[in-house]
Amino acid sequence: MSVFEIIKKRRSIRSYLDKPVSDEAAIKILDAARLAPSGGNRQRWKFVYVNEKNVLRMIKNCSPGFYGDATAAIIIGIELQQGASGGASSGSTVGVLDIGFAAENMSLAAEAQGLGSCVIASFNAGCISKVINAPENFRPILVFSLGHPDKVPPMPAKKSLSEIVFLNEYGNKWDKLGESE
Amino acid sequence: MSVFEIIKKRRSIRSYLDKPVSDEAAIKILDAARLAPSGGNRQRWKFVYVNEKNVLRMIKNCSPGFYGDATAAIIIGIELQQGASGGASSGSTVGVLDIGFAAENMSLAAEAQGLGSCVIASFNAGCISKVINAPENFRPILVFSLGHPDKVPPMPAKKSLSEIVFLNEYGNKWDKLGESE
Repeated sequence: MSVFEIIKKRRSIRSYLDKPVSDEAAIKILDAARLAPSGGNRQRWKFVYVNEKNVLRMIKNCSPGFYGDATAAIIIGIELQQGASGGASSGSTVGVLDIGFAAENMSLAAEAQGLGSCVIASFNAGCISKVINAPENFRPILVFSLGHPDKVPPMPAKKSLSEIVFLNEYGNKWDKLGESE
Repeated sequence: MSVFEIIKKRRSIRSYLDKPVSDEAAIKILDAARLAPSGGNRQRWKFVYVNEKNVLRMIKNCSPGFYGDATAAIIIGIELQQGASGGASSGSTVGVLDIGFAAENMSLAAEAQGLGSCVIASFNAGCISKVINAPENFRPILVFSLGHPDKVPPMPAKKSLSEIVFLNEYGNKWDKLGESE
């Protein structure tokens, strides 16, 4: 399938089958994350792959936005530099964007392998850090649930291109954009 | 090409040919952005597609991180809700993550069409807003340069999976990960 088909087919999955994710599939997903761009190529990201039932249960308990019994999850976070501007950079836009790039690659790499996933931003970071025993300088930014999809929901309502795209100036409609998307 | 091949092939392009991007290709890229996930499906993103030379020049002047004479650019930002928590949510992690998801889809959609792009976080937001005449409640988060690549750089040094991935607990090495990536 082309990347366009994968992008279109990807849904946020919140209902999973009780069937493990193969290590090979997980590694392909993590490798897709690894190859994402990052600000200044700094790659300050760390990924904790969780496939142990007990740890998964605890991660879920930390995450109100985690739906479904995913058989795997990936905690994605930023490793802050010690000292210097460490604390201040925790919520830096660049670091968070990097995680966004990596996570989208992961979502597409999951979909391409017939797996389902969901990016989850609603979680208690302190709770997650405790569960995975992360050091002080790690900031969890995203929880990624992963597994074999049970129910695949329809595409949620999406704004049309003409609602979200302007040409050369904010508010300037582009006549090439149909109204039908 | 599979999504894995596209992910692997994508480079950050900083040198472009003097050749316009077709409207059709640009619209496919913007549609890929439109189909990205967003927190609570809020889609608070707006995209200003820039293909006018004069506007491009000004965008570049606002952006120290913008290299090469790209024949197009896309300003990606968040439209803040008026009133309520509007101001405070400007740098919200969720909104920035959403832009990251959308931008990665754009990078891959560009690559899949033989185009080059670069995600640029180094710019003066006030300057960009002025150039595109954006309203008060718009926050530019990312500048995306786009065009036909001239020089395609080699892959920059990437950390191996075993450097960035742990299993079930922070710091716990996963023996399935090779050292060779």
